[in-house]
Order: sequence, then structure tokens, then C-alpha cells
Amino acid sequence: MSAFAVDIEFDDDGLVPVVAQDVETDEVLMLAYATREAVERTRASGRAHYYSRSRDELWEKGATSGNVQEVAEIRVDCDGDTLLYRVHQEGGACHTGHRSCFYRTLDGKNVGELVFDPDDVY
Amino acid sequence: MSAFAVDIEFDDDGLVPVVAQDVETDEVLMLAYATREAVERTRASGRAHYYSRSRDELWEKGATSGNVQEVAEIRVDCDGDTLLYRVHQEGGACHTGHRSCFYRTLDGKNVGELVFDPDDVY
Repeated sequence: MSAFAVDIEFDDDGLVPVVAQDVETDEVLMLAYATREAVERTRASGRAHYYSRSRDELWEKGATSGNVQEVAEIRVDCDGDTLLYRVHQEGGACHTGHRSCFYRTLDGKNVGELVFDPDDVY
Repeated sequence: MSAFAVDIEFDDDGLVPVVAQDVETDEVLMLAYATREAVERTRASGRAHYYSRSRDELWEKGATSGNVQEVAEIRVDCDGDTLLYRVHQEGGACHTGHRSCFYRTLDGKNVGELVFDPDDVY
């Protein structure tokens, strides 16, 4: 039974990819994954929660770094198998100190904005 | 050996998720998957190519519908395991006729723009 008005199709591992987008600038900040519980906590708290596949645990974005994401809106795609968190991003989304994780082109050019020194944060 | 300046981390199925974003409006249009060949064809042709997991085949976006995506830039995220295609979107990205696949909120509200009648296209 779903607690959401729109059904989410979680994959075989119980995950759904989530695109995080800056609601002020519309910049795409990152892609991560969420479980049902992560989505429920995001909705309940208003702060972006994800599920780390490498650490195998639910996490709140910014809980240690302070770079929290206040979620203005959660959108679902046509197939229900991808989410879009539209967020107010505190500081930067990327652990490298960039505002967005997508700070490089495929040709290796750096097009991103560095907003904090990761050595100060992690 | 990679043909790209930045290494892409494809998953065990040889896929990488790709976020497509409108380069003019910054709207997030869709999420799909690509193989190395799909990325190479995208770069060579300047038109977005993906890999359909359900149909198990490489496809060029808009080849049948006309809703092609001219790719202005390909970005790679910090971990190299997600791509961002920044595109000029012809018509709409979504098979439902919406400009973006993310036309609904999780609460079921329609926030998207309908730009074509799918019955005319598919």
C-alpha cells in the first residue's frame, strides 16, 4: 500500500533514482537513490533523505556537512520510476566543494562553481 | 580504454543513468540510461541516444516521434556514474505529450506543460 498519491516504482533493490534540482536557479545538483523510507522521511521532515548504496544506509543530506537540502517539491516522472527533489540547497551539493556534482564536461572542462573547501567540512 | 577525457563508471549491466535538461529553460526533462555506445553516438551525432532497458536496445530520442534532443553539452558527475545531457528539446520529452516527464508532484498535482497530443505522434 502506498502512502503517496502517485505510485512509485522501486527497483528490485527497493531503490528509486532521485534527481536533485536547485529550485532557485534550476541547476541540476546531483543524482542519488532513495528507498520508500527515505522518501517518507523527506516528505515528513522537509529535508532531503537518500539511501547510500555504498554505505548501505539511509542518510539525510547535509546532516554532517551542514549542506542540507530543504525540499520545496517532490515530483514523479511519467513511469513513476524516477523522482525529482526541487530543493533549496545550503552551501554546495557536492562533496568536492562544488555547488553541483555535475561540474565537469565529458571532455574534462571544469564548468562548475566551487563554493566551499571540502577540507573544512568533511 | 576510454574515448572520453573523463572516465564513466558504467554499472554491472553496462549502463549509466542520464539526466536530460533543457539548456534553454533549465527544466529537467527526463531520466534514461545509456551504454558506452549510446554515449559515443550522442557525442558523434550531437543527438541524444539512450539504451532502453525494457526493449533492450539502443535508441535515438525522437527518431520516431520527431521530438529529438540536440545535445549542447554532456556533463559527468563527481563519481563519474551519472551523466547530464544539456539539450535543445524539440517538442516535448515525454511520451504523454508533456514537455517534461516530471509533470506530476508526489501528491498527484499536475504541474507540467502539455505540448503535443501523443495520439498524433505515436
